[in-house]
Amino acid sequence: MELLNGSLISNTIKTELQAKVNDRKAKGLKVPHLAAIIVGDDGASKTYVQSKVKSCLDLGYESTLIELSENTTQDELLNKINQLNNDPLIDGYIVQLPLPRHIDETAVLLAVDPAKDVDGFHPENVGRMALGLPAYLPATPSGIVELLSRYNIETAGKKCVILGRSHIVGMPMSLLMQRNHPFGNCTVTVVHSKSQNVIEECQKADILIAAIGKPYFVTSEMVKEGAVVIDVGITRVADSTKKSGFKLAGDVDFEHVAQKTSYITPVPGGVGPMTIASLLMNTMQAVEIKNN
Amino acid sequence: MELLNGSLISNTIKTELQAKVNDRKAKGLKVPHLAAIIVGDDGASKTYVQSKVKSCLDLGYESTLIELSENTTQDELLNKINQLNNDPLIDGYIVQLPLPRHIDETAVLLAVDPAKDVDGFHPENVGRMALGLPAYLPATPSGIVELLSRYNIETAGKKCVILGRSHIVGMPMSLLMQRNHPFGNCTVTVVHSKSQNVIEECQKADILIAAIGKPYFVTSEMVKEGAVVIDVGITRVADSTKKSGFKLAGDVDFEHVAQKTSYITPVPGGVGPMTIASLLMNTMQAVEIKNN
Repeated sequence: MELLNGSLISNTIKTELQAKVNDRKAKGLKVPHLAAIIVGDDGASKTYVQSKVKSCLDLGYESTLIELSENTTQDELLNKINQLNNDPLIDGYIVQLPLPRHIDETAVLLAVDPAKDVDGFHPENVGRMALGLPAYLPATPSGIVELLSRYNIETAGKKCVILGRSHIVGMPMSLLMQRNHPFGNCTVTVVHSKSQNVIEECQKADILIAAIGKPYFVTSEMVKEGAVVIDVGITRVADSTKKSGFKLAGDVDFEHVAQKTSYITPVPGGVGPMTIASLLMNTMQAVEIKNN
Repeated sequence: MELLNGSLISNTIKTELQAKVNDRKAKGLKVPHLAAIIVGDDGASKTYVQSKVKSCLDLGYESTLIELSENTTQDELLNKINQLNNDPLIDGYIVQLPLPRHIDETAVLLAVDPAKDVDGFHPENVGRMALGLPAYLPATPSGIVELLSRYNIETAGKKCVILGRSHIVGMPMSLLMQRNHPFGNCTVTVVHSKSQNVIEECQKADILIAAIGKPYFVTSEMVKEGAVVIDVGITRVADSTKKSGFKLAGDVDFEHVAQKTSYITPVPGGVGPMTIASLLMNTMQAVEIKNN
């Protein structure tokens, strides 16, 4: 068993991106500029978006954090999005989810200029990805493909089972793993809440990707000997031995599953850091498309 | 075994659409108007596009066939598309594929206004479909879902295996069958040219959808007893007993497979007529969105 060390690979990618930033500076080119909008005071969301901004600044990107109050109206948010769409200094931006209940997430999503949609959530980017056209790929699925590629894990013809069909992970993951690509070409099965025979499906997987947000759902009996296991889940569970009172749990019962696998991602330190690395790569792509 | 009679269901849908047209006329509303562009002289394409136009006229739709010569330039075609995008009388239009080699199909596809893209091929429509937003659904996959729904075939939790990952059938079919929808919620597996264990995958299918264009590829041993089999293939194969010298062959060895199935589509008269019915439904949707 070998760990798929997302923290390590993410750092490698950051070093590569930093070199690109320095190269752009030396050539007098614009450095990437990511903006992030957060609405409201959710603690976890704030922490998450701040770490994205910090990662940008660490690399020499420019970054703007736009914090809007919980009672921001939908129109006010759409106006802010319109400003970002029209601001030539902003190469890409993200709107941190979830949004407060009184705001229609779909309306917000559709207002983002696809050319600046570095989260890859706009239908035009999703469709471009599905059709194999150039696109911003959603951060978590493309981070997973990047991780597989950096460990040179063979995927062609392999059976890939994806647990979960979310718009942000499971669905796009299925499209990326089935496409004709050096780290695609899998026979992909998507398993979800309505599926029968979930255990049997998982047992067939050469590559098992769990993205359902249910701590320790994937047990040892569900995993084939030698499988590659990717754990996207990251849920807070109570842990009185921790100062914070909680620990982060993946969808995989790592303790019992790991020994059966050929490769497995830890939680934390697996998929999470790759998600941020993808966002940083997308933002670099945004400035490269525009200014080179 | 029961035949999934696409010809019959297609006629039912046409009758329903005709009633809608008459209703619109009675209310003084615009009737749907579909335009179709064909470039070049390919016989099969011409026949196909003419049958689409004829189907429109039969229902009381308006329809315009735009025939451009084989040596039309890409710019000339894009100009024509631009005209259609800006013509308020045209509710939807299609560009018959394939296009001559000197024309970039992707550039043409991207030029179509998504609001008039009744083929559902534009990335924005593909992405909207993937995200469960209102969209024009691609005609063949949505025709198959319609066929399943008209026969009230239970799909939730069933294992659906799709042979082929084309942008026009296999890929969108996988998204439609896995979505949370009364005739979705399948556990979907997509099998393609790079897949290993194709036979074993097919043997697991409660619903098997073949869309690879290989005559008689699906044999009796590949089909589970009681499965639902949908045959998208339609290939001309030589047949000296026919006046035309050929017959139409599906991807399924119907003669030996049919007896094992609960439901199966014939070729011809199965999926083909449903594809045209879907296009007609999308065109009605186009006028309804705009004018009602």
